[in-house]
Amino acid sequence: MSERLLLKVGGSVVTEKGMQGVASPGAIAAIASEIAAYSGGSLCLVHGAGSFGHPEAKRYGLAAGADRTNREGIALTHEAVCRLNQMMVEALRGAGADAVGIHPLGCSWARAGRLVSLETRPLQHLMDMGIIPVLHGDVVMDEVQGACIVSGDQIVSFLGERLAFTRVGLATDVPGVLSAGGEVIEEIPADISPEVFAGGSRNTDVTGGMAGKVRELQQLASLGLPSDIFHLSRISDFLHGRPHGGTRVVGRMNYG
Amino acid sequence: MSERLLLKVGGSVVTEKGMQGVASPGAIAAIASEIAAYSGGSLCLVHGAGSFGHPEAKRYGLAAGADRTNREGIALTHEAVCRLNQMMVEALRGAGADAVGIHPLGCSWARAGRLVSLETRPLQHLMDMGIIPVLHGDVVMDEVQGACIVSGDQIVSFLGERLAFTRVGLATDVPGVLSAGGEVIEEIPADISPEVFAGGSRNTDVTGGMAGKVRELQQLASLGLPSDIFHLSRISDFLHGRPHGGTRVVGRMNYG
Repeated sequence: MSERLLLKVGGSVVTEKGMQGVASPGAIAAIASEIAAYSGGSLCLVHGAGSFGHPEAKRYGLAAGADRTNREGIALTHEAVCRLNQMMVEALRGAGADAVGIHPLGCSWARAGRLVSLETRPLQHLMDMGIIPVLHGDVVMDEVQGACIVSGDQIVSFLGERLAFTRVGLATDVPGVLSAGGEVIEEIPADISPEVFAGGSRNTDVTGGMAGKVRELQQLASLGLPSDIFHLSRISDFLHGRPHGGTRVVGRMNYG
Repeated sequence: MSERLLLKVGGSVVTEKGMQGVASPGAIAAIASEIAAYSGGSLCLVHGAGSFGHPEAKRYGLAAGADRTNREGIALTHEAVCRLNQMMVEALRGAGADAVGIHPLGCSWARAGRLVSLETRPLQHLMDMGIIPVLHGDVVMDEVQGACIVSGDQIVSFLGERLAFTRVGLATDVPGVLSAGGEVIEEIPADISPEVFAGGSRNTDVTGGMAGKVRELQQLASLGLPSDIFHLSRISDFLHGRPHGGTRVVGRMNYG
């Protein structure tokens, strides 16, 4: 059976998160060539916004909603993340993978900051043809609060629930979820509060950092789909199903 | 009551249709400044692909469908029309209108070449906030044939049926639908075959030219929403509800 993978790369690994709108071309190129070299099945890619979009979203307070007074933040935030998305798609196509960018703003709908709808049929169809859909954290129109920020992690959780993926992986700028002592936690069950895990991402962002990431994955794990968090340098290991030295979020504690 | 307008600008008026991937910056800037000057209500804009996308779509035979043998045409066609869309959005924003690009590939779904779904909630919400959604003819994934080409005209017909527009207008490179004698036909009823109208667009395209345009509008008119076809130079007249010297597609012949 061929694999169907959902891979997310953190915004902090593809951008210089301290510097607004600055990409990490080296990281993007490396990720693209590892993905292009994978031929074991179909793939959907999601990336975070990193330094593209977060500054605009913060400045206009979009996480709390939007109306006519701060609406100009919507287009500015969306355009910023779309620029990053275009770089990712171009890098993939340059490396020999077939890929198209898909922007959540146009194809999804939220309620009080949570996705309630995202058109998955084109994604499924693209993957079936061997084309990689590349989604990203984005500003999304919201039934309750006008607009909201939907993180790449929330998109992973949403898609993981609805498309039949065989494995889900998140590449980050750390080797996995770290304990207060700085060691990789090998396994996190779905029923433990993510706040107990200290540290993680070097920068905070509007979408919750490592605790937010784990919370999204715990939701997936509770539905029966475990996932892996690992360092950027281990993407190829994840794609090919090899040990990646990171953290696995599972449905319940493995007491074996 | 404030107006809610659906305006489509033909691919042939915003691009040099004989020359692949060449935009008409003057036409784009003129359209953008006329739209930015309009303050009578909300607006949704759709544009055709013109010389962006049509050549790629033809080369890969996408109108007849797609599978793994011609799938690379999907990303190439989509990227081409997205480039044109970005120019339109940038021109609008540069002229002072708030606008975002919305790409049908990600947010819609077709069956045998006809749209069966397109996420309209974000469009409605954006318009309510005073932001112009800018859609375009695109390659769309298709349940029956893998992929298909959905024209801007088909998008107009689809949106016209589902969102509560007060008026629908199509700006073209001719003054309206022309008779064999070259005169503007003032009124076309929904129940007359569009093939009876000669001429029209100077260039044929994969989406049916003027006859295809009229057919889409007749569908709308039969549902109670008349529409107007007029020359590019009359956009401002249309927006402000003034006579535009073009053709009106109506539900049934006006024998008055």
